[in-house]
Amino acid sequence: MSTDLPAVSDSTIRRLSLYLRALEGLDDQAEPTVSSRRLAELAGTSAAQVRKDLSRFGSFGKRGLGYSVAPLQNHLRDILGLQRRWPVVLVGAGRIGSALFEYPYFRERGFEIVAVVDRDPAKVGRRWNGVKIQSVEALPTLVRECRAELGILAIPATDAQAAAEALVDAGVRGILNFAPVQLHLGSHVVVNDVNLTLEMEALSFALRTASELGSGEGG
Amino acid sequence: MSTDLPAVSDSTIRRLSLYLRALEGLDDQAEPTVSSRRLAELAGTSAAQVRKDLSRFGSFGKRGLGYSVAPLQNHLRDILGLQRRWPVVLVGAGRIGSALFEYPYFRERGFEIVAVVDRDPAKVGRRWNGVKIQSVEALPTLVRECRAELGILAIPATDAQAAAEALVDAGVRGILNFAPVQLHLGSHVVVNDVNLTLEMEALSFALRTASELGSGEGG
Repeated sequence: MSTDLPAVSDSTIRRLSLYLRALEGLDDQAEPTVSSRRLAELAGTSAAQVRKDLSRFGSFGKRGLGYSVAPLQNHLRDILGLQRRWPVVLVGAGRIGSALFEYPYFRERGFEIVAVVDRDPAKVGRRWNGVKIQSVEALPTLVRECRAELGILAIPATDAQAAAEALVDAGVRGILNFAPVQLHLGSHVVVNDVNLTLEMEALSFALRTASELGSGEGG
Repeated sequence: MSTDLPAVSDSTIRRLSLYLRALEGLDDQAEPTVSSRRLAELAGTSAAQVRKDLSRFGSFGKRGLGYSVAPLQNHLRDILGLQRRWPVVLVGAGRIGSALFEYPYFRERGFEIVAVVDRDPAKVGRRWNGVKIQSVEALPTLVRECRAELGILAIPATDAQAAAEALVDAGVRGILNFAPVQLHLGSHVVVNDVNLTLEMEALSFALRTASELGSGEGG
């Protein structure tokens, strides 16, 4: 299975992550198996979707018995590439960068921020829990030394493209981008944008629509 | 137009936000009109997609001339519900909460964090730029006083459902949820989950797949 991963949509991958999180929330001593219906409830989807998603990666469930919790956890970790440690380089030691550095769930999952750079000389040289903040000029060397394939951009939009290119030139192939800008990189690089303003705008759009269709309040 | 919004997919709304951001990056003095092709480039999509998305909300473009930058910006702000101020209540004054409070792009868009609560007595009473952190018990009163319809949850998973219910009971209808948990709320409430671990997992999945299909390195 681990050598034969099918092409799947982004939304499928996201659901696999949610299934894993749901399974980890179960006590596999008390509950050694889980039905697709229960897993769906926990992950906020339908039982049919659970079965469809999981069947793409092998036959994990037993008819009438459901899925074995511990083995399915392992399968999902394997599929998601979580059976290893991922060293990560963080670009930007501002508020967002600092919050990400301390984010406990990254380390739990094997994503370890091993290097931090910032362009602000006042920040360079400070230590965050043993990791010394370095200047952006050190970026290529750091990426190579850490053998980092993942990078996080937590910097203003104006600096993001250049930093992304530096990361990629040094060997990074996956970027989590918090800068509100469209990055233009080679097709071999995977970029996930986290656009917080856009998330708020999706809410304001929904509320605005609801107000107009509903009671007429707001707007 | 503003009273007749069609039902559109989440991905369409997200593209509208990207179009707005792209238009705001243009100098409308030097460039009073923009083609669907250029707008597509800036927003990372196709010209056909731009035309399709925008045509759902009215006929903004002129054949051969493209879109007028300033009026289209206004139309998009109107569609997205950004022609007003949105008071926001923030639950959680930890690292993520603090980063969000300082996030400059929220205020620019009219999303103003007007109240902050935390369950940690050591944090209650501190001031963030004029906003006093209050205890979670004050949540219902604060929501009502601020007439907040939007809330942000930046707290651990274990506390999120109760806090979300308190927000909704007091009048919040849209929640940006950073807690890694599936919230169960009424269908009249809109929840957008920002799951940072899941974003990283989508990267590790992609890199793992690429490694196996490609040079065989990594894994």
